[in-house]
Amino acid sequence: MAVDLKPGSSRPARFGYLGPAGTFTEAALRTVPEAAGADLVPYVSVASALEAVRQGETGGAMVPLENSVEGSVSTTLDELAHGDPLQVTREVLLPVSFVLLGRPGGTPADVRVVATHPHAEAQCRRWLRANLPAADVVLSPSTADAARSVAEGRYDAAIAALVAAEHYRLTVLARDVQDSAGAVTRFVLVTRPGPAPPPTGADRTTLFAFIRDDHPGALLEVLTEFAVRGVNLSRIESRPEGDRLGRYFFSVDCDGHLADARVGEALSALRRVCADVRVLGSYPRADGIATQIRPGTSDADFRDSVNWLATLRRDGSTWR
Amino acid sequence: MAVDLKPGSSRPARFGYLGPAGTFTEAALRTVPEAAGADLVPYVSVASALEAVRQGETGGAMVPLENSVEGSVSTTLDELAHGDPLQVTREVLLPVSFVLLGRPGGTPADVRVVATHPHAEAQCRRWLRANLPAADVVLSPSTADAARSVAEGRYDAAIAALVAAEHYRLTVLARDVQDSAGAVTRFVLVTRPGPAPPPTGADRTTLFAFIRDDHPGALLEVLTEFAVRGVNLSRIESRPEGDRLGRYFFSVDCDGHLADARVGEALSALRRVCADVRVLGSYPRADGIATQIRPGTSDADFRDSVNWLATLRRDGSTWR
Amino acid sequence: MAVDLKPGSSRPARFGYLGPAGTFTEAALRTVPEAAGADLVPYVSVASALEAVRQGETGGAMVPLENSVEGSVSTTLDELAHGDPLQVTREVLLPVSFVLLGRPGGTPADVRVVATHPHAEAQCRRWLRANLPAADVVLSPSTADAARSVAEGRYDAAIAALVAAEHYRLTVLARDVQDSAGAVTRFVLVTRPGPAPPPTGADRTTLFAFIRDDHPGALLEVLTEFAVRGVNLSRIESRPEGDRLGRYFFSVDCDGHLADARVGEALSALRRVCADVRVLGSYPRADGIATQIRPGTSDADFRDSVNWLATLRRDGSTWR
Amino acid sequence: MAVDLKPGSSRPARFGYLGPAGTFTEAALRTVPEAAGADLVPYVSVASALEAVRQGETGGAMVPLENSVEGSVSTTLDELAHGDPLQVTREVLLPVSFVLLGRPGGTPADVRVVATHPHAEAQCRRWLRANLPAADVVLSPSTADAARSVAEGRYDAAIAALVAAEHYRLTVLARDVQDSAGAVTRFVLVTRPGPAPPPTGADRTTLFAFIRDDHPGALLEVLTEFAVRGVNLSRIESRPEGDRLGRYFFSVDCDGHLADARVGEALSALRRVCADVRVLGSYPRADGIATQIRPGTSDADFRDSVNWLATLRRDGSTWR
Repeated sequence: MAVDLKPGSSRPARFGYLGPAGTFTEAALRTVPEAAGADLVPYVSVASALEAVRQGETGGAMVPLENSVEGSVSTTLDELAHGDPLQVTREVLLPVSFVLLGRPGGTPADVRVVATHPHAEAQCRRWLRANLPAADVVLSPSTADAARSVAEGRYDAAIAALVAAEHYRLTVLARDVQDSAGAVTRFVLVTRPGPAPPPTGADRTTLFAFIRDDHPGALLEVLTEFAVRGVNLSRIESRPEGDRLGRYFFSVDCDGHLADARVGEALSALRRVCADVRVLGSYPRADGIATQIRPGTSDADFRDSVNWLATLRRDGSTWR
Repeated sequence: MAVDLKPGSSRPARFGYLGPAGTFTEAALRTVPEAAGADLVPYVSVASALEAVRQGETGGAMVPLENSVEGSVSTTLDELAHGDPLQVTREVLLPVSFVLLGRPGGTPADVRVVATHPHAEAQCRRWLRANLPAADVVLSPSTADAARSVAEGRYDAAIAALVAAEHYRLTVLARDVQDSAGAVTRFVLVTRPGPAPPPTGADRTTLFAFIRDDHPGALLEVLTEFAVRGVNLSRIESRPEGDRLGRYFFSVDCDGHLADARVGEALSALRRVCADVRVLGSYPRADGIATQIRPGTSDADFRDSVNWLATLRRDGSTWR
Repeated sequence: MAVDLKPGSSRPARFGYLGPAGTFTEAALRTVPEAAGADLVPYVSVASALEAVRQGETGGAMVPLENSVEGSVSTTLDELAHGDPLQVTREVLLPVSFVLLGRPGGTPADVRVVATHPHAEAQCRRWLRANLPAADVVLSPSTADAARSVAEGRYDAAIAALVAAEHYRLTVLARDVQDSAGAVTRFVLVTRPGPAPPPTGADRTTLFAFIRDDHPGALLEVLTEFAVRGVNLSRIESRPEGDRLGRYFFSVDCDGHLADARVGEALSALRRVCADVRVLGSYPRADGIATQIRPGTSDADFRDSVNWLATLRRDGSTWR
Repeated sequence: MAVDLKPGSSRPARFGYLGPAGTFTEAALRTVPEAAGADLVPYVSVASALEAVRQGETGGAMVPLENSVEGSVSTTLDELAHGDPLQVTREVLLPVSFVLLGRPGGTPADVRVVATHPHAEAQCRRWLRANLPAADVVLSPSTADAARSVAEGRYDAAIAALVAAEHYRLTVLARDVQDSAGAVTRFVLVTRPGPAPPPTGADRTTLFAFIRDDHPGALLEVLTEFAVRGVNLSRIESRPEGDRLGRYFFSVDCDGHLADARVGEALSALRRVCADVRVLGSYPRADGIATQIRPGTSDADFRDSVNWLATLRRDGSTWR
């Protein structure tokens, strides 16, 4: 992994994350071994966290990529798709668990105004209607900001991550106030480019495919390149190219590792078919689910077919 | 169109929009003939604007669907995909044009803190770095909120829509501060369900396809149902189902009208292949670009083939 | 079935077959109920047997379509593909079983020259090498001709159908002299066009698809029209168009009946995609194997989706 | 090419062909440079001509593969598909041109019985009806046999190749008696396996694909492997596996050379997807038409994508 540790240096590693302190992203970063003992630095935006990685100010950054209730974090996708290339070396899955925080001594009955981030509001809407029907909701740039605004006395309560209670010395008025049990947020650890971590058999590969202009059916073509080689896609999203409606690039997660023959051949095919391809890397799946390999698409099958072709080219047809 | 006008009533029609007053969405609503002379009501969220349509409080609502810089407005897609069905009867394309607003008498040189919405910040980032490199940016729930906070004296300037200058009596310090010339936001007018506006030859159909569980290759299957019938897709996005990562539904725009034979057959096929399909309706394209019809897929071609099949079933094979 | 029986006529029905008398085709015709009590007329060629059907001289003709050792009977396919349309109303599967016939009193040891048809020679080659290694083989226009030439004293033995022994008063010198146990010939009963026999749930549909000129990928397109609707193909063959190499039409058997919704929709699609389509009809499979129906492609599924579309077009989206 | 010439030997090369002498196949063999000065040996069947190549008795054999009126020569395909592997090193296209041959001094008016091969009869049927409506047609194992039977006085005339007139000292009673102007027969020169002739940019590759048992949609899969890599098919035919109806293998001609990257990758994919693949070789097209290369599928495109993948695997993502 390309973490930027200067050997022999006494300086601890530095890792950035989407701040402020007290968000879910900080919690995600705290789960990874690389971060143990490192300086953890909050950034005000995904863009600035990633820029710090590009500049070498940090060895990596934890950013949110996908949320099972609110979908992809568009900003993260767009920041990764453009600018100097970066790499994903690890993913973290974190159950979505919101708490209602108030000032010490407060009770739910006192709450007239609740602050939170729009995504959190979306995920706790039914709970709010049922439990605080008379309360107003004000939106904040982050759940941690919402917590801070409560600490500063501006609002009565915040919906935030549990970790914010400690940061802002607030009281937990209610736990698990999210509407969907089982919702999960997916974060990725982003570093400067380097060789991918070795395949584990339960890997994921993340990439962007930039479609050629005015090419109807291009997405079908891209999907067929994966399907014909038995590579399963676990996520696909269109993102606008940024200059006009109707031009898209696609953000894709597929099962398997770029070192796998079938994944490598599919990526090479995209390289030929697409205007451009940016591969963010391969890394172990956080859920550890092993890749299902369709018969005829294992590395051994590819090796056999490559040897067979070499013999065919050298000696002509040889029968089994 | 299914606008809820009580005949004989002296009450004017009411249309909602994503507020507050002074946003681009209000500007979009002001462009549609239905809204002329109607009461235009701002709502604090897309969810509440759509809920008012469902409850019959308004005859329709204008909400943002897609932005060529920031991508789809996830909340709109999710709100339309769930709950009682709604219908899209019209689309509006609005060039993205931001202005920097300050208090009367202010100048750009005075600006130390700029407020704006995260999407606007993303779209004006390069301009801000180049022109106000020393200014801090604070995020607001909407560009109109940002403008109001300037009017209230909390911040020095706001990046907002021009329409906000009038609402909050602010001065335009700079125009066209967006980084991408030509960026466009797409809004849709949403009503209660009813028959679609008649086909014009330049129509769009918007739908949601809910994929069956554990069905790898399902998206490829969905795309093939369109491709095989010559129906071109202009937008496709995955959205999480909401309960766990790895389950998606797809939001799709296709060329043509649900009254077209090829579109109708493709929709029927999705109905059979998918766990569920929700069609939001067909409506004229705002850009007026006529649908390209692949040979063999016109309504006349479908009529001919249906008649041919009927004859075949009744009389056996008849040669031309 | 469209057999041409004049009502009230005392004349028995007439059925043709590829002669001469004593071939497998006669044996196939004798298995079908329609032929019981009818005049069975041998024709010198498939072309003349089919022409007699077209002219109304016979009510139908039995002709070979496919042989599991020698493949399709090209002449039959070409004759059915061109000229006035005909219909297939029944198929017959007959195990390939050859006998070695000699003159009364002869023994295998006396055989120096064996006559047979080239297809029979191909299917008995290994037996001949093993059992009559010194014998010469001469080719005849049919196995029945070979038997007759033995009866006329020109050759010592013939490889033919058992039915020829009786016709030409020959002795069976050896039975089951074919190399492949289990080989089967497929015959079809051809009549003038009419409504197909009703669906049985175990039906087959036979058709010709004429590809548009200069349309690479056309076959893939044709196959996709079937695949996308869950219609399985049991046989596909290219045949040259007749005027130059490189232009083909395709002879296809698919599972199911043209009255089935999925088959009907696939046929209609071919009608739109191809230069021409000739459907020879649907008829019960001789092996009685029921069609496997992929989920979402039953007639009930099609009815549901058609009703759903009709409601959608009339009333707009309705949620389950 | 693997022609079996013993260096230093004074024995001339030997080439076989489907006899008897005086057929079109002999004429095809006489057009190829390899055969100049060689012994040309007629064989009684395609099987025996190919067996002589396998045994080293001849350096190669010319056999018919495809006829634009009568379709593929099934026997040739089956003999090439099974047994020890062979190779195609050259193709010859010969216009189909039949003559009516009689004994010296005869005239068309004298002709009461015409002998010919069934394929020739099929291709001259309309001419016979129009010009010799009263004549009977008897079928012979080959057009040369028909000519010989005329020379022996058994029949009045033969439809045969012009080359037979010389062999059997017959008179040409009519020329160009075939019904389709422009029909062509395709022959191939078959040798023992060896490296293919080098690519010319106008090459063809011939192969057999053996489908896995009970795999519906397998042909679609095979076609997709070619289509996704931009390899166009010029001929595809199903052939029964030989033991029962409903199991097939496919005989395929594709544009391009097995040394081409896109063809090689497609062949390797078939190797993995199919039960077996037998490649008969790549050779120059007789018509010299250069292969159309779809953008993104040239050898240079493949080289670029392979290098890109290697860099990606070694160093991580690098942007253009």
